[in-house]
Amino acid sequence: MTDKERLQRQIDFLVEADKEKNILRQTRLSGHGRRENDAEHAWHMALTVYLLREYANEPFDVSRAILMSLIHDLVEIDAGDTYAYDPEGMKTQAEREEAAARRIFGILPPDQEAEMHALFREFEEGVTPEARFARTMDNFQPLLLNHANGGRDWREHGVSEEQVRRRQSSSEHGSAEIYRYTDALIRENVEKGNIRES
Amino acid sequence: MTDKERLQRQIDFLVEADKEKNILRQTRLSGHGRRENDAEHAWHMALTVYLLREYANEPFDVSRAILMSLIHDLVEIDAGDTYAYDPEGMKTQAEREEAAARRIFGILPPDQEAEMHALFREFEEGVTPEARFARTMDNFQPLLLNHANGGRDWREHGVSEEQVRRRQSSSEHGSAEIYRYTDALIRENVEKGNIRES
Repeated sequence: MTDKERLQRQIDFLVEADKEKNILRQTRLSGHGRRENDAEHAWHMALTVYLLREYANEPFDVSRAILMSLIHDLVEIDAGDTYAYDPEGMKTQAEREEAAARRIFGILPPDQEAEMHALFREFEEGVTPEARFARTMDNFQPLLLNHANGGRDWREHGVSEEQVRRRQSSSEHGSAEIYRYTDALIRENVEKGNIRES
Repeated sequence: MTDKERLQRQIDFLVEADKEKNILRQTRLSGHGRRENDAEHAWHMALTVYLLREYANEPFDVSRAILMSLIHDLVEIDAGDTYAYDPEGMKTQAEREEAAARRIFGILPPDQEAEMHALFREFEEGVTPEARFARTMDNFQPLLLNHANGGRDWREHGVSEEQVRRRQSSSEHGSAEIYRYTDALIRENVEKGNIRES
């Protein structure tokens, strides 16, 4: 590959990545505005990783976790957003996302493709300290917005306490302190009737 | 400040930051879609910094440059987006943005406020290697989208070659290689009549 081809592949990837801005999530912006998209979520999550890093259960490489945050949803350009409370969609999610990762990261030069694909898998597996904390922030960011919106998204989707707790349960492995905060916030929203009592 | 107050200020800041998703830029998404917002731009720019880091003129701390990218437009929550080709808006830009930085970063605990405010100033001054490369990517990302859209934004705003070149001129200090690519791209768009010949 010539230097010129290398740069062109990097640029082609960056233009392809632009499409992530069109992938809508279920979460609404604060002020109960329009639905958030994946690129906005990834930006917000990366900022959250940095500013709340002191609450991680264990030492971790903050830069790697930020990078994971930035790229973790690129696969949704092909695979779409799978709502956390959609059991049917979740069955095929891993397979759809792996095919998407091959195509999308495959636009990059081979060395960067391998790096980005490995980083994406590491995030998905959630085993390393970086992935654990990044995943905790991936759960926490929409919870914050949802709470800031008076819990309307939970109410409108009829989400139950059990569902919210199941989704947030892995956050304990990333940050016991953020998990405690989350727990209080869930209780408050159950009491207010925003989250359906299980 | 108690631990609880500290966490609450961090969370208040993160919820405030959400508003950046509502600040629209002049650039349009690829496919000549809707206008891009600041949060999407910051995400895209951070990704661009990482993937094109090999083209920087000098060694730099990639993590710091990514962080700069993530926070560089938060001030626009108060100050609004100033179009790069709006000379009137640019006169008062620095003052409006400094006041915004004081209010917005001031939501954070003092240590994080000082860190974020300093990082923002460093980006604005554009003197360190990190700021120089981040600023180059800040210029390059909208240029890429504009070019991917067949130059329609330049055409619709009647932007001249001199204006585009003036804006991109500082990119030479961040990356001679990206600047060369930019130069060829500008020439192509002048020839096609998308950018007005000066």
